[in-house]
Amino acid sequence: MKIAVLGTGMAGRGFADRLTELGHDVVIGTRDVQQTLARTEPDALGHPPYAVWQQTSPEVRLVPFPKAGAHAELIVNATAGASSLAALDATGAANLAGKVIVDIALPLDLSQGMPPTLTVANTDSLGEQIQRTFPAARVVKTLNTVFFEVMIEPKRVPGEHNIFLAGDDTDAKNTAKSLLHGFGWPMDAIIDLGGIRAARGVEMYMPLYFTLSAVLGTFHFNIAVTPRR
Amino acid sequence: MKIAVLGTGMAGRGFADRLTELGHDVVIGTRDVQQTLARTEPDALGHPPYAVWQQTSPEVRLVPFPKAGAHAELIVNATAGASSLAALDATGAANLAGKVIVDIALPLDLSQGMPPTLTVANTDSLGEQIQRTFPAARVVKTLNTVFFEVMIEPKRVPGEHNIFLAGDDTDAKNTAKSLLHGFGWPMDAIIDLGGIRAARGVEMYMPLYFTLSAVLGTFHFNIAVTPRR
Repeated sequence: MKIAVLGTGMAGRGFADRLTELGHDVVIGTRDVQQTLARTEPDALGHPPYAVWQQTSPEVRLVPFPKAGAHAELIVNATAGASSLAALDATGAANLAGKVIVDIALPLDLSQGMPPTLTVANTDSLGEQIQRTFPAARVVKTLNTVFFEVMIEPKRVPGEHNIFLAGDDTDAKNTAKSLLHGFGWPMDAIIDLGGIRAARGVEMYMPLYFTLSAVLGTFHFNIAVTPRR
Repeated sequence: MKIAVLGTGMAGRGFADRLTELGHDVVIGTRDVQQTLARTEPDALGHPPYAVWQQTSPEVRLVPFPKAGAHAELIVNATAGASSLAALDATGAANLAGKVIVDIALPLDLSQGMPPTLTVANTDSLGEQIQRTFPAARVVKTLNTVFFEVMIEPKRVPGEHNIFLAGDDTDAKNTAKSLLHGFGWPMDAIIDLGGIRAARGVEMYMPLYFTLSAVLGTFHFNIAVTPRR
């Protein structure tokens, strides 16, 4: 499938590599290609700059957001949550129309340190904002409840554990389920929470998630709903 | 131990019965004893009125909030979250000073139906509000992530699953852990999330919890953090 991953951070790169490995035709969308490639310093968390990663992932093309949107049959929103609406707007509403947006973004406010607060919560969610802003797109909120390495390779967490999805379009959710299954998620580990409003639940789980990661000392964990269905 | 349970709903009654069974000396606190006893109709969820339950639980004394506070060595806040601060205020700051408040309350706004939104979230929590309002009390937020029947009898959910606690006072958390262990929670199932700020995490899990309960068709479920520590 032709897939556009929006976002040049570790999550976007991880998705691009994994989707390429699974045989998809992948571009990464960014606001300014030259600016993204010009960075030479590691980011705040010590991750290498994009250009360094690009050398080991030559199949993935870096393109401006509108070109990514035009390329895509399916879009993965791997931007920082606070930038997601702007990135999708730059991608172009016409390019999003009718397409599945797999929204893995976290609406984090990191300005006060860890654990983060959310930029939107309780009576709204980023997933709902995206669906409302781009009504012709078919938004599926999923995967945001685990670290990106676990999203694309769930066996990094041993044992049985669950992943959630929420969206208003059943076909889009089935497409997302197939994608997740391709990553290694067992079909019966995927819990459909219903419409896009349930994005609130998985986004508001973030404070517990980040607190747990600090307590456990790892991001390689998840939760399992018990009893198993 | 002399325990005051604040709140006359199903959670409060369940705690009172279970704590009595475990050998504690239990009172239930309410705003107006005569009014609580005068109710003859089932509540909105079909639960019997307090006076009917009282007949099968004669050891539990129903007393006004201040008397409950004076009685207690430990307080369980099982009031509706939106009423918790008022109930604790009526119980009396002097009666709370130095004592452990096991706060199991959910700050739910049910005015728009299910799933509920929260009356406080993201940058604050009910647990923090209680600790801030009654600084001499020792608040432990715990148990709110499961149905009250599971809180007091965790084996209602088969298999291994976890429960969380958060609070600023280590001794108070140890007291709460003992209480939970008495209910049947294995010590290694209890995850200490740190200070009372982590109440945000367990309270903000509520939207996911209520959505999951609707999807699963039961309140007899929980989550297990995996891999097991």
